[in-house]
Amino acid sequence: MCPHALIPYKTKNPKTRLSALLSQEEREQFAEAMLEDVLFAVKDANCMPVIVSTELFESELVQITVQDADLNQTLNEILPRAENSVIIIMADLPLADAASIRRAVTTQKDVAIVPGRGGGTNVIYLKEPQKFHVDYYGGSFSKHMAIAEQAGLSVDVIDSFRLHTDIDEEEDLVELLIHGAGKSRAYLEGLGFALATDKGRVGITRKR
Amino acid sequence: MCPHALIPYKTKNPKTRLSALLSQEEREQFAEAMLEDVLFAVKDANCMPVIVSTELFESELVQITVQDADLNQTLNEILPRAENSVIIIMADLPLADAASIRRAVTTQKDVAIVPGRGGGTNVIYLKEPQKFHVDYYGGSFSKHMAIAEQAGLSVDVIDSFRLHTDIDEEEDLVELLIHGAGKSRAYLEGLGFALATDKGRVGITRKR
Repeated sequence: MCPHALIPYKTKNPKTRLSALLSQEEREQFAEAMLEDVLFAVKDANCMPVIVSTELFESELVQITVQDADLNQTLNEILPRAENSVIIIMADLPLADAASIRRAVTTQKDVAIVPGRGGGTNVIYLKEPQKFHVDYYGGSFSKHMAIAEQAGLSVDVIDSFRLHTDIDEEEDLVELLIHGAGKSRAYLEGLGFALATDKGRVGITRKR
Repeated sequence: MCPHALIPYKTKNPKTRLSALLSQEEREQFAEAMLEDVLFAVKDANCMPVIVSTELFESELVQITVQDADLNQTLNEILPRAENSVIIIMADLPLADAASIRRAVTTQKDVAIVPGRGGGTNVIYLKEPQKFHVDYYGGSFSKHMAIAEQAGLSVDVIDSFRLHTDIDEEEDLVELLIHGAGKSRAYLEGLGFALATDKGRVGITRKR
């Protein structure tokens, strides 16, 4: 089984909550490195990546370019026309690996959802995409659970910290530096970021 | 297979990083509610809980009471004498469930480790406890990975956000209010805590 993997991706001024740590140019390069890590994992899980972006960017990959910046509207126009199962996976999940993605796409239920940090939704796998619609932003995990229930779809909540850990804030960079193995971790290390250990949780430092 | 589950537990003044939100009495009651949630999950996974604490407290459960407050020394005196496999599971994992614990205790490797938030170690399952020693605090996940390697033990890093999410800071309470189903979530709600949704991650509010 090889579902299409829709990967929403923002090229311009992404990850603004990291602005205190990274310049806009660095955030754009970092977001691209995370995307490459996600693409590697998606292909390793035998899914076919499709970038969903507001702008074309340099890549060999299949891309859906949308004029509209609204992620929900964009995806909700794609889903009813999907002919097979679809997995929607965010581009800021650089800890994703083939094993965690496979746990989603091999579910016995109609839908698999991976909650993100702080109540978001990081991954949605849909056996019948035309029966579902997305509603991202602002506590979307509980909204997506309700949408599935209203549609009579059974849901598997996948218990994965690799797919749960979306990278938005400083503390998330710590997880990437500890558990990451791809380009985005290397990018941060190239900028001088390193782990800083004290008695509590590990933090980060940056040498300039 | 029914390993003993060693559960370190601190009765007095726990969870000091929540002091801005909870009084000492509330933190002690909250810690006990989290322990009860962990005990429920441990028993549901057919493990036998053993509380490892510096003080006796009211409970029907088997308890090991230690004079010494050093968690590492205490556990490292217990492990060499363990006759069978052992799982060490922290008391601040109220999202733990039987499925996630079973994933650890059914590993094909010698050791299963679940990393905590910020580089800690939340769960260690040891088929041969006498071959391992613990070194908690300050980035213990990487230390425990190194200890296993030095002992020639194979390691399975369990990818579970339920066991990854230790409750230490305000943002962790958000995860408990979203994904919890036990006594500790009910305790927080009884104090007036609720989710507060804006455009980014979900936060918390407290009505007094």
